[in-house]
Amino acid sequence: MKFTLNEIAELLDGELEGNGQEEIFSISKIEEAKKGSISFLANPKYESYLYTTEATAVIVGKDFRPQRKYNSSLLRVADPYSGFTSLLEEYQKILLIGKSGIEQPSYIGEGCKIGENIYRGAFSYIGQNVRIGNNTKIYPQTFIGDNTNIGDNCIIYAGVKIYAGTQVGNNCIIHSGAVIGSDGFGFAPQSDGSYKTIPQLGNVIIEDNVSIGANTTIDCATLDNTIIRKGAKLDNLIQVAHNAEIGENTVIAAQAGISGSSKVGKNCVIAGQVGIVGHLQIADRTTIAAQSGISKSIDKKGTFKMGSPGFEMKDYMKSYAVFRNLPELWERVRQLEEKILNLPAK
Amino acid sequence: MKFTLNEIAELLDGELEGNGQEEIFSISKIEEAKKGSISFLANPKYESYLYTTEATAVIVGKDFRPQRKYNSSLLRVADPYSGFTSLLEEYQKILLIGKSGIEQPSYIGEGCKIGENIYRGAFSYIGQNVRIGNNTKIYPQTFIGDNTNIGDNCIIYAGVKIYAGTQVGNNCIIHSGAVIGSDGFGFAPQSDGSYKTIPQLGNVIIEDNVSIGANTTIDCATLDNTIIRKGAKLDNLIQVAHNAEIGENTVIAAQAGISGSSKVGKNCVIAGQVGIVGHLQIADRTTIAAQSGISKSIDKKGTFKMGSPGFEMKDYMKSYAVFRNLPELWERVRQLEEKILNLPAK
Amino acid sequence: MKFTLNEIAELLDGELEGNGQEEIFSISKIEEAKKGSISFLANPKYESYLYTTEATAVIVGKDFRPQRKYNSSLLRVADPYSGFTSLLEEYQKILLIGKSGIEQPSYIGEGCKIGENIYRGAFSYIGQNVRIGNNTKIYPQTFIGDNTNIGDNCIIYAGVKIYAGTQVGNNCIIHSGAVIGSDGFGFAPQSDGSYKTIPQLGNVIIEDNVSIGANTTIDCATLDNTIIRKGAKLDNLIQVAHNAEIGENTVIAAQAGISGSSKVGKNCVIAGQVGIVGHLQIADRTTIAAQSGISKSIDKKGTFKMGSPGFEMKDYMKSYAVFRNLPELWERVRQLEEKILNLPAK
Repeated sequence: MKFTLNEIAELLDGELEGNGQEEIFSISKIEEAKKGSISFLANPKYESYLYTTEATAVIVGKDFRPQRKYNSSLLRVADPYSGFTSLLEEYQKILLIGKSGIEQPSYIGEGCKIGENIYRGAFSYIGQNVRIGNNTKIYPQTFIGDNTNIGDNCIIYAGVKIYAGTQVGNNCIIHSGAVIGSDGFGFAPQSDGSYKTIPQLGNVIIEDNVSIGANTTIDCATLDNTIIRKGAKLDNLIQVAHNAEIGENTVIAAQAGISGSSKVGKNCVIAGQVGIVGHLQIADRTTIAAQSGISKSIDKKGTFKMGSPGFEMKDYMKSYAVFRNLPELWERVRQLEEKILNLPAK
Repeated sequence: MKFTLNEIAELLDGELEGNGQEEIFSISKIEEAKKGSISFLANPKYESYLYTTEATAVIVGKDFRPQRKYNSSLLRVADPYSGFTSLLEEYQKILLIGKSGIEQPSYIGEGCKIGENIYRGAFSYIGQNVRIGNNTKIYPQTFIGDNTNIGDNCIIYAGVKIYAGTQVGNNCIIHSGAVIGSDGFGFAPQSDGSYKTIPQLGNVIIEDNVSIGANTTIDCATLDNTIIRKGAKLDNLIQVAHNAEIGENTVIAAQAGISGSSKVGKNCVIAGQVGIVGHLQIADRTTIAAQSGISKSIDKKGTFKMGSPGFEMKDYMKSYAVFRNLPELWERVRQLEEKILNLPAK
Repeated sequence: MKFTLNEIAELLDGELEGNGQEEIFSISKIEEAKKGSISFLANPKYESYLYTTEATAVIVGKDFRPQRKYNSSLLRVADPYSGFTSLLEEYQKILLIGKSGIEQPSYIGEGCKIGENIYRGAFSYIGQNVRIGNNTKIYPQTFIGDNTNIGDNCIIYAGVKIYAGTQVGNNCIIHSGAVIGSDGFGFAPQSDGSYKTIPQLGNVIIEDNVSIGANTTIDCATLDNTIIRKGAKLDNLIQVAHNAEIGENTVIAAQAGISGSSKVGKNCVIAGQVGIVGHLQIADRTTIAAQSGISKSIDKKGTFKMGSPGFEMKDYMKSYAVFRNLPELWERVRQLEEKILNLPAK
């Protein structure tokens, strides 16, 4: 990374107080910034760092008034935090732009339609009749099965495995080791105690702007579709079983598991290591606390659940507060029994 | 997929009422079926869909008597659900038959014995002295370490990693990202607080008809074998630690973890996110509820366990029912104490 | 493996009672050993096996006095268990030495500095400006992103994915399917309910002597570093989120998850399926029981925690003991209420 302060000021539409020719090589938190880096000050509680930071420049609000002496150039913008994340995004774009073209050896089957300005890394495998949109990056060692569609501006990181027939929208990011479209876990018990595999012939549909974390697994549906709706964000090591559906803009933290045929609504927040059993409906805007187990459908929007099996979060917390004192409660009941024994009968 | 109804009738040994020349392109649930698809009606509670479905054909029982008008051809078989799954299997076979031969570049070491009619995908890696049976499919980017044996009719999906010395039986399916034979987690504490790695020199044995889900990990034994017995079915993201043994026809759902040296019996059902600590014996036909933690051996066959640490499921559910009402119980005890205080002493 | 007993005696600096020309082909537990193998006897409770084992040789203590007739050669050493693990290590070294040189096709970008005596497997991908130390093994299908540094004597198993900019120390082992440096899970909620991705521009630093299990994921930091300190041992399927830090010689069992920005101290033991929420400090020598959820910082060194949310392990166990008897407690309170009702008022 190398920008002049003038370039950054122009990028962020900001007003610079300092030397526009100075060069910036990195982006840092204000409490850790060194010379050559740019930082930001949005939260007043970090203001004291401004007077000690070694950052070459600090992004601040339009109306910010320093109370003491400082050594950095100031770059004034309407919203310093947004300015900072815009700068991060710009930096990331530059990092990613680096990758384009086709590295060899790589494999591509017959009948594929590949967009413009894409990257296909070495040892990537693209099956037959695959369509890939423009500006999409397929990192090395990725597997993309037959008849798969992938949209524009996607990043498929190294080693992602996408089974045949998967549909991926635009602007999706899939991290390394994620597996999309593996067989749903369906087995019919036989009279001799063994299981017969039920063929899983459906697929996975991933809509636009979805992010999928490293080593997450999303199984294909038995017949129709497992669906990840637009804007959903899935962390690492998540399990999404066959025929499940994850609603628009729902966020799921690492190591959670959604069982087969369950439908999670929009704008839900599912914390880490949560488990949701199969065939449930989870209402929009549901929040589920970490490690909870959801065994019943949730009908009311905006519900908070906790526990395994989970119930209303504030009720759970009250019960758990008593749980911590159960030995005391047990002893108090014992003492009551003793006292009652010593009381005169009616 | 493209079959005529006559072809399907012959395949399922069924009796067709309708035009045998009509073509079928997909398989669907009766409530979602469109023209060109075939569906089935096994459960009487779905009968009403028969009168509204757009399915070109519906598989029904030999003796089924429709109560109203319907638009589909009927294909009568002895058991409609079995007929339907047979059709799914036939379809899946056709899908899979597509893959055969050797794609390049792929790597194979010296001294290998490879069966007939196999598929070796591009960028697959087969080490030295590997034996692979007939009709087995090794998808792209798969790693098969030295001295590994893989039986007949197996499917090893893209990106599976099988460490040296692993034994895989016949008719096994291993999904993408699964890792078989990684080092067991064994470290000896040293006096300075550091750990010394205990070499893991054993292997993994996977018997016939085993299914292993995406990104599941099975560690090799320290000296002898980690064993997955025949017919066991493992879902995605499961951990099986060193020296563990999973019994015949045992089913394990996603994200469960079996610790080192534990032996799980036959025909067990282990639900999602269960944890089993090390060095336990779990009796045959044990059922463990989701998210439970098993910390003691289970001796009695057919036991149901729940909780963490887990105990008898029906006892757990009774305790948990009281847990939900602990704040009430606390208050009732407080009121009893108050009343007792106001009672006359003996 | 093939050693003579004389060679093993020299290796372990032991005193042999038996034929030094006999050959050893494998290492086994004493209760399972067959002819041609060597075993050990450290724990007196296994002594009876010495008199029945088929092992060609058994490693015993210097002063061990057999009570009955036995058929094996004896190899006397100061500490039989240490002798045995030394032998395992020697054997493992031989197994690993096998891999060296460069298999083709493999990919390497410009500007790389690669040490001596390394192994680069087929279909491995090394980006630009990567440095790799001496004696390091890069197995097939591994991805090593641009500007990554990897030290000496590391083993990076098949299919590991290391994102650009990662730092790996010396003597590290990373197992198949592990993903190092994937984007941290950071999204800023927007007013329309959607989320904007916060670029993750930091990296991961892995210090010396670290072991990372199969399919474990370690996310890069937002700006600075996610750090795994020297000697830490991570099992399979673990999630380490952005900006987290794992202390020196800390051991984490399978399927545990460490959320963003949490700092785990030195010499901690974190059991399987534990979850730690974000932005916590966990003191040195903390032990956390399996499946526990830690929601508050732990200040006191040497603490044991259990439960979700977790508290002092011994308190948790007392509460849980009462939990198991809650239906009884409920009934006793009900009976107390009944009795009180029948008592005369004051």
